[in-house]
Amino acid sequence: MALMTIGWRKGSVRIIDQTKLPQRFVLKDCRDIRSLWQAIKKLQVRGAPALGVAAALGILLVSEKATGTLPQVKKKLRSAARYLATARPTAVNLFWGLRRMTAVLDQCQGCSVKTLRQALFDEAMAIIDHDRSVCRRLGMYGAQLVKSGDRILTHCNAGALATVDYGTALGVFFTSRRQGKKIRVYADETRPLLQGSRLTAWELLHERIPVTLQCDNMAASLMKAGKIDKIFVGADRIAANGDTANKIGTYSLAVLAHYHRIPFYVVAPVSTFDFSLSDGNAIPIEERDPDEVRTFGGVYVAPRTVPVYNPAFDVTPHALITAIVTEYGIFRKPSRQSLRRLFYKKNTGI
Amino acid sequence: MALMTIGWRKGSVRIIDQTKLPQRFVLKDCRDIRSLWQAIKKLQVRGAPALGVAAALGILLVSEKATGTLPQVKKKLRSAARYLATARPTAVNLFWGLRRMTAVLDQCQGCSVKTLRQALFDEAMAIIDHDRSVCRRLGMYGAQLVKSGDRILTHCNAGALATVDYGTALGVFFTSRRQGKKIRVYADETRPLLQGSRLTAWELLHERIPVTLQCDNMAASLMKAGKIDKIFVGADRIAANGDTANKIGTYSLAVLAHYHRIPFYVVAPVSTFDFSLSDGNAIPIEERDPDEVRTFGGVYVAPRTVPVYNPAFDVTPHALITAIVTEYGIFRKPSRQSLRRLFYKKNTGI
Repeated sequence: MALMTIGWRKGSVRIIDQTKLPQRFVLKDCRDIRSLWQAIKKLQVRGAPALGVAAALGILLVSEKATGTLPQVKKKLRSAARYLATARPTAVNLFWGLRRMTAVLDQCQGCSVKTLRQALFDEAMAIIDHDRSVCRRLGMYGAQLVKSGDRILTHCNAGALATVDYGTALGVFFTSRRQGKKIRVYADETRPLLQGSRLTAWELLHERIPVTLQCDNMAASLMKAGKIDKIFVGADRIAANGDTANKIGTYSLAVLAHYHRIPFYVVAPVSTFDFSLSDGNAIPIEERDPDEVRTFGGVYVAPRTVPVYNPAFDVTPHALITAIVTEYGIFRKPSRQSLRRLFYKKNTGI
Repeated sequence: MALMTIGWRKGSVRIIDQTKLPQRFVLKDCRDIRSLWQAIKKLQVRGAPALGVAAALGILLVSEKATGTLPQVKKKLRSAARYLATARPTAVNLFWGLRRMTAVLDQCQGCSVKTLRQALFDEAMAIIDHDRSVCRRLGMYGAQLVKSGDRILTHCNAGALATVDYGTALGVFFTSRRQGKKIRVYADETRPLLQGSRLTAWELLHERIPVTLQCDNMAASLMKAGKIDKIFVGADRIAANGDTANKIGTYSLAVLAHYHRIPFYVVAPVSTFDFSLSDGNAIPIEERDPDEVRTFGGVYVAPRTVPVYNPAFDVTPHALITAIVTEYGIFRKPSRQSLRRLFYKKNTGI
């Protein structure tokens, strides 16, 4: 795919402004950390893996401009990391990206500011390369679960637009297609911000993968009619026992899949795991502006004063997940026990 | 409630144009059957019981203007009934209303055209009065299932705007409130046409019943968090075994309610039952324009060419329904057997 969702270009962070899709394809250059913070907050760049990259490039933005002694520059960078961490609370990849960058600060003792800058640049580029290779490995493992003829449902956007350029759940579809498997994807529109309509439908049409769009509340009817063979979704944070936070509506799909005996797969890089949380109850869930539900394109579709419940994510208990696909392989019946192996692999690189 | 969703006014059918709510409160006078047909098709008037009344008043519109001999007038009226029957396929109340009016034609043998007109007028007014009294009886029975403190979820709009002036599921809330019970309602926005945001939230605010609005895909999270005690919905057609067609998304809620052990109630007048269908598989499901999903307020939010699945209704199997509330009482664990009693009551009036 020729798309690059986020990258470094001549001292600025270049993103595809996803709030403009599919009407217009607009690139936006964030030249300072404040404009990048806004872009994250407004979901101009979104998707857990892409947020990890955004975090790294945000630190780079500050590092390129920061002047002073090494301690002064490090202080500015740590302050920038704390600021970026406030943009969105749920996707853990944001904090993962920041931790990888601040680890470079810890390692650079007594070096020059120039050397620090170079080390940070190298680390940010490594994070981008890492995302690209991880997504292809996710695709390779995930495609083992797909057979020709499958009709697959997905929710929100776990595609190229949620990563640097390939996707997690959608990467599985791209790889399956390249292997010659014929698939049809049913994309939930994903209220309130319609990432399914705007982003997933657009990406799949672009890749010539047959796609049908439906409202979130229609998924159950498709399952009842026997039209869905499998469900693949991404993730924003996965606890040590496999409980998975993902876009609001994912839990609903997991319950429906359980009732209809349809396999339910989560596809996510290890950077999405938060082994510090024993289960999903501790995952902070972002509540967003009520007007995301009350309005559409600036026009009120509900009474202006009606109270609104608008969580951006929900948590799917591990018992409802058939398998989690990671770059280290497929973890079936995810649980604290089975995921210990992943934790070990992550920390040893084996 | 001061609202009158549909009524007869000086030779025209006056409706509240529901496509304009909640932004604007616009009354529309349909002066001929074609404009009424359009109003039904475009959902300017909607809701199964209201469609029964619309059917009756549509026949009245033609009867007031039709000239000629009695056979000529009857022929015109039968042709009008066939035409109105094509407006929407799922809600059986439309056909029920037409049948009540054409039964008058059958009864009027050898009378004058003037007498026929009067008989049709009387029948249409009787249908309106019937809807008003039935809704209050539904409210009375349904309120027996509600206790103070209940947090109740509803889907689409089964309120005053779906009937002449009181509602089915929402009528239960209005009656409960008048009995002094404190309730909170969680209203699904109900994609694609947002009857929950536009109509239900508006009605409940108007009646000062505490209401919270959420996207359809958030209902499961509310259930998981223990915030929903009961679910009440309306119906568009109920088969002889209790299988219930209602707004798309209802089946999804019923499965979620089953999983979370939350009672799931359907509130509907007997005119919504179709005893000619042994189960829900035979209920025709209207598929609507793909652009209802692809666009919002005339603006495309999805690629223009993406295929869309857009059924207006789904069917909930009777096994997932805790009880059906009718004007003849509460039918728990609805089934072919238990509903035989209702069929008998309906036909004998006892």
